[in-house]
Amino acid sequence: MRYDAVVVGSGTGGYPGAIYLAQKGLKVAVVEEHLIGGECTNYGCVPSKAFYQVAEAIRSIEKLGGEASVKWENLVEWVSQVVRESREGIKGLFESHGIDVIEGRAILKTQREIVISAGEEKRRIEAGKILLALGTDPSPIPGVSFDGEGIISNREALYMREKPSEVLVIGGGVIGVELANILSSFKVGVTVVELMDHILPTMDRDVAQALKTHLSSRGVKIYEKTTVKSITKTGGKYLAELSNGLKLEVDKVLIATGRKPRTREAGLVENNIALDQKGFIKINERQETSIPGIYASGDVVGGPLLAHKAILESISAARWMSGEEGFHIDYSATPSTIFTGLEIASIGYTEKELTSRGVKYVKVRIPAYYLSAVKIKGGKQSFIKVLLDERQEKILGVHIVAPNASEVISAYIPLYLGKIGFGDISRIPYPHLTVSESLRDFAEYLLGNPVHLLKK
Amino acid sequence: MRYDAVVVGSGTGGYPGAIYLAQKGLKVAVVEEHLIGGECTNYGCVPSKAFYQVAEAIRSIEKLGGEASVKWENLVEWVSQVVRESREGIKGLFESHGIDVIEGRAILKTQREIVISAGEEKRRIEAGKILLALGTDPSPIPGVSFDGEGIISNREALYMREKPSEVLVIGGGVIGVELANILSSFKVGVTVVELMDHILPTMDRDVAQALKTHLSSRGVKIYEKTTVKSITKTGGKYLAELSNGLKLEVDKVLIATGRKPRTREAGLVENNIALDQKGFIKINERQETSIPGIYASGDVVGGPLLAHKAILESISAARWMSGEEGFHIDYSATPSTIFTGLEIASIGYTEKELTSRGVKYVKVRIPAYYLSAVKIKGGKQSFIKVLLDERQEKILGVHIVAPNASEVISAYIPLYLGKIGFGDISRIPYPHLTVSESLRDFAEYLLGNPVHLLKK
Repeated sequence: MRYDAVVVGSGTGGYPGAIYLAQKGLKVAVVEEHLIGGECTNYGCVPSKAFYQVAEAIRSIEKLGGEASVKWENLVEWVSQVVRESREGIKGLFESHGIDVIEGRAILKTQREIVISAGEEKRRIEAGKILLALGTDPSPIPGVSFDGEGIISNREALYMREKPSEVLVIGGGVIGVELANILSSFKVGVTVVELMDHILPTMDRDVAQALKTHLSSRGVKIYEKTTVKSITKTGGKYLAELSNGLKLEVDKVLIATGRKPRTREAGLVENNIALDQKGFIKINERQETSIPGIYASGDVVGGPLLAHKAILESISAARWMSGEEGFHIDYSATPSTIFTGLEIASIGYTEKELTSRGVKYVKVRIPAYYLSAVKIKGGKQSFIKVLLDERQEKILGVHIVAPNASEVISAYIPLYLGKIGFGDISRIPYPHLTVSESLRDFAEYLLGNPVHLLKK
Repeated sequence: MRYDAVVVGSGTGGYPGAIYLAQKGLKVAVVEEHLIGGECTNYGCVPSKAFYQVAEAIRSIEKLGGEASVKWENLVEWVSQVVRESREGIKGLFESHGIDVIEGRAILKTQREIVISAGEEKRRIEAGKILLALGTDPSPIPGVSFDGEGIISNREALYMREKPSEVLVIGGGVIGVELANILSSFKVGVTVVELMDHILPTMDRDVAQALKTHLSSRGVKIYEKTTVKSITKTGGKYLAELSNGLKLEVDKVLIATGRKPRTREAGLVENNIALDQKGFIKINERQETSIPGIYASGDVVGGPLLAHKAILESISAARWMSGEEGFHIDYSATPSTIFTGLEIASIGYTEKELTSRGVKYVKVRIPAYYLSAVKIKGGKQSFIKVLLDERQEKILGVHIVAPNASEVISAYIPLYLGKIGFGDISRIPYPHLTVSESLRDFAEYLLGNPVHLLKK
């Protein structure tokens, strides 16, 4: 069988490009080894945000002294249902676009030939062009391996059949803090261990500190500059010894320290597809790998491991593949979001990054608890920080720490992109009792006449 | 005592202007007859959104078969606490800006003199300039008056000491549907009666229909094209007879049919301040009333009765008052938001308005349930509708019916204002698992290559 284009991987780095190519009239196949939708749909964004919504609802009720309970099995079933529906949505798009879905593991045989194995069966297809959207896998840590029981990754964490009593989360990055927040809302005892100076090590310290205070107030124990010395299985439990001397007995150990690209045993090296030192696929400015006609997108090319980056990158790759001009994916202009009640959303550079690049900047930071929407949702640690160039003409970074930040950042994006200025913003009636209306206040503050904040 | 400027009313139409004037160095007094912060802070946006947050949390848990309960008294106490904090915030801003707050009812004695009565005491102050931000009062309906017990307005509805069993809401406008949604979440039986063709009569029928379906699924009974023939008090209850023959026994009758300006007995007519036929204060393009030096802003001048319109209008009036140029408040570019779980947010014109003005338009409407964020929050009726001019160059209206719409509309505002186009938007990585990312999908749809939606 010959296809004009074969997309390997049906996750956010794969399916958008496949659909785009089919819309352009190409005969397209998608190869998927596991579940349609990939990591985001099955083990990441979708199930975690489903859990999250219920977790926050429980917090909202308990803060008023109310009572809230959901049966764990109902919760997991509902989360699974949401995931199924999302997956079916992607399947439906494949069908309506006439895209063939081939189940199995794809291995590049030649630069134009793919062998797909599903169990004993092998199938060979030819591809005019190939898009590699192979994604990443959770990465274990030295000395501790996933054991399929209690030492788990995000993939098992959102589908645990029974609610654990105590969980150790190794790694205080985005996945670690999101899962810590969720689990703690369901009365699971959670301890987070982070190797670096502070949780969210790629973010600025003030952002991390706000989240640490918030999570601690929710009962999550956080140890920074701490490592795990050993993990021993004892009966059904795990005994963990930390570098600070603490010993913990937990039901589950969740490793969330990093991800590794799924570039092994896929025939890449054999076909001279260049990888970087960490194993991610190298691409040029046209998203082409070192082999003409083979493109790559999503997590497997590195950069921020985010679904929305992958979606756009996938579409852009498809444009290049269909002979159109793709577009430049600016990783620094890709917003990141953290769903932790007190949410965090950022676009552009952090202070750390600017400092390390020797870029001088002006920091403007306002507290956000003055907003009634924040008072209602909760979040005394809320703030909004905008980093400007020295002449205060260009926005270098926006960092929002507040409830709803994941939606609110989208209202700040045109400001970051220079599509709209503070003068205009100060005259826009952003709706009241939202967190987005902080934009107008921020503009007024910067222009020198803030009505809701004290002057600089 | 003489002030450079006196602001009558400390609500959203008053306090922002007062602060702005004080920042410009003027000696400012604010006169408040009742509670600092006015309707929005005390009886509107703030307490209703506090209630709303808990109401939605309960829904989130119950939809999974979980149980959630909050003691009514705890709820009301918490709502009161949030309101107090918001009020204190405004008081704090007055203090830090050296603004005198004078309690009592203001009556214009002359065009530069105000008499303030608080109980028996009367006080006279002189004002260089005056800003009238008198606000509105709930308006009763013919034959039914507020009785201080069971026939109530929004002012009592959010502070009821005991949870009612059955409530009749007269008027299916924004206040009516928001309170119906909230109360029904707490297992109050709610019936909404709307005189016009459909609830939300100023909105388009498709928007109203989506909300009707949503509220009905939550147990709210809605009768359109229906009026209340009579209300009779019987013991502690009220017997209501509707024009459709239905008879209801309820604990409370909430009248939410409209608002009337607080322009009576304030010395306005006596001082030749022109009012319109409905009693709202007429202002010119500089927000000045018919009397030079006397300005007005907020609900009392009519237009959309929205806090964010009032805030901007108040600042603009203050600018004119301090000799600067104010700015034009474009009422059609003022977004409106409805907080009802399935939220509604709009900016610009409705189809109704365009049709009645004879403006031809192109309607582009996408369902929004495909978004995983909508699947998680719930809302099968979700959609996004954008109205464009015939040449599809200018946006005439944006109408979002979806969870989170109140925050999401702010991401659509730059599009509506023409600050950013569909081409740019289609290449922006709006964060995944938000409702805001619909923007990118919408742009792709309009440009002809939608990845997440079927082609037009």
